[in-house]
Amino acid sequence: MIHGGDVLSYSDKFEGEIIDFSSNINPLGPPECLKDAINAAYAELVCYPDIKYRELKVNVAAYLGCDQDQVILGNGAMEIINNVCLLFERVVVFTPCFIEYIKRPVVLGKRVLKLPLADGFSIDLEKLENSLQAGDLLILGNPNNPTGLRIPEPVLQSVYDLVSSREAFLLLDEAFFEFCPTDYDSISMFKTQSNVCIVRAATKFFALPGLRLGYGFASTEFARKYREIEMPWSVNAFANAAGRCIFKDRAYIERTKEYINKEREYMLKSLSQVKWLKAFNSHANFILLKLLKYDEDIVFDEFIKQGFMIRKASSFDGLDKSYIRVAVKDHQSNEKLIDLFQELA
Amino acid sequence: MIHGGDVLSYSDKFEGEIIDFSSNINPLGPPECLKDAINAAYAELVCYPDIKYRELKVNVAAYLGCDQDQVILGNGAMEIINNVCLLFERVVVFTPCFIEYIKRPVVLGKRVLKLPLADGFSIDLEKLENSLQAGDLLILGNPNNPTGLRIPEPVLQSVYDLVSSREAFLLLDEAFFEFCPTDYDSISMFKTQSNVCIVRAATKFFALPGLRLGYGFASTEFARKYREIEMPWSVNAFANAAGRCIFKDRAYIERTKEYINKEREYMLKSLSQVKWLKAFNSHANFILLKLLKYDEDIVFDEFIKQGFMIRKASSFDGLDKSYIRVAVKDHQSNEKLIDLFQELA
Repeated sequence: MIHGGDVLSYSDKFEGEIIDFSSNINPLGPPECLKDAINAAYAELVCYPDIKYRELKVNVAAYLGCDQDQVILGNGAMEIINNVCLLFERVVVFTPCFIEYIKRPVVLGKRVLKLPLADGFSIDLEKLENSLQAGDLLILGNPNNPTGLRIPEPVLQSVYDLVSSREAFLLLDEAFFEFCPTDYDSISMFKTQSNVCIVRAATKFFALPGLRLGYGFASTEFARKYREIEMPWSVNAFANAAGRCIFKDRAYIERTKEYINKEREYMLKSLSQVKWLKAFNSHANFILLKLLKYDEDIVFDEFIKQGFMIRKASSFDGLDKSYIRVAVKDHQSNEKLIDLFQELA
Repeated sequence: MIHGGDVLSYSDKFEGEIIDFSSNINPLGPPECLKDAINAAYAELVCYPDIKYRELKVNVAAYLGCDQDQVILGNGAMEIINNVCLLFERVVVFTPCFIEYIKRPVVLGKRVLKLPLADGFSIDLEKLENSLQAGDLLILGNPNNPTGLRIPEPVLQSVYDLVSSREAFLLLDEAFFEFCPTDYDSISMFKTQSNVCIVRAATKFFALPGLRLGYGFASTEFARKYREIEMPWSVNAFANAAGRCIFKDRAYIERTKEYINKEREYMLKSLSQVKWLKAFNSHANFILLKLLKYDEDIVFDEFIKQGFMIRKASSFDGLDKSYIRVAVKDHQSNEKLIDLFQELA
């Protein structure tokens, strides 16, 4: 598996609904306002989406706190990452990272330089300094997937300063931004900077992976370049409609942040008490685990038989079969998963 | 304008709803079954779409009359065209053609060879024979946009024989297939062939441009290659749901075919009676017109003031400002448009 969420491929392993800990979606489900917005948008299906997505850009800009002409859009964050890669010849990543940071540039005929994260999965500034060249695209997950770690503000500032002085470009993938502690906002931080694009998405936090709505912030100049190479009409009418309501639902946003924060702490604490596991700290809604006994296949097979799907992590560059990743889900499911880990001991 | 349908950009030119003759969508609107399918799919938004789209492939395969593993999918036909371009180094097109056949390969860093269509907008086999090289991707619209002409079966066979003997590859864009006379079905024709991909879409015929559902037929081997380079989850949950019902609505399909056929004949006849126009024959739901007086800007500006938007055609390679394109819409709108042409004389 190179992606989580493929429950269907294992439906023969368990009678009943498999609880999916392999993909990282808000367990509270989408905001309630969405249903009406979708219904109202039905009539819009027969028209091409506004090729300039003017209304959606206004809504995203208000949510991100930037100007409309600094907003870029895509069919999920995935498409934005793909399109940004198109604008560069070499991509630099730190591994382990989201697999598509490596796969998309390769598919697009670009070169990829993989640098290993340092101890504790932190960014190795020295390695970056020795490798980054003018015109490179550096892609960083913030928080990173599968490690769950957000880049500390001073480190991010140093990374950006280096990127900027080298005339390279930084793509920050913040698809899990809202799940994290609110220590700093990269968009405020880089609001007047030109060598950075910050991509976020409705997918994870608003629990809408089926809707395909990705959006991002970039300088007006970069956003213009992006628009020249993007495909027309890639955001569907329902994703456009979702933008009318989800960002304004502050109560939902706060409720989710609190819920995930509490459950993440609960899981981190409980999992670190399981003797054959090492649970890495996380700022996101998923946790990377090192297996001190068994390997990913054994744990996967044992758990799937009981209706729980975890994410094997050996497909992440730099990790081996002794790692798995689990989502932070609703409390009841989390409890059951922890029980399974304890029982397997 | 490089695409039709951008009504919003001209909303200040007319008070009231602009009737859009610039994009070519089934005037009967989407099949009625769709509303229930969309409602039922709401619950699926919270899950990632099946990364293999197994159910959708079964539905598309049944509709196209091919095997599931011969089906490829995309976020609209647009994404399939883009992805197929990724697999080749040089693209060959006949102009005028859909602008994205030229734009996407350029964006993807590919070379493009543009050959002019012969008299009557027919394919110049000799030119093709002199130009096509091993490994080339030939993209042909069938029917072609903006000319509206379907490739005659013997010509298509000759084109394919040449493509195949040269070890090149043919991408047939059949986004308007169902609007055309049912003279032959390219999928039946090429069912066992390896050097061809046929792309179709829900966009035009099922009146669903906002939904973004493209699909195509290719050999099992080519489909496998395609899957290796496509982006994950690019088809949204609602497009997947539409696949459950729209293809089975034979009554809707027949009704649309009859309606468009009748209206196209009506428009062709009426427009050819307007002295300052030359109306080219069409097999599709749009008609290319040569302006024998005025240019596209004058006609566009005159008509938009009265709430009608036509498609200027000079942005198509090989056409100048003396061409425009109009859609075949509902009878009442078509009548009004014809009146406008007559009044402008």
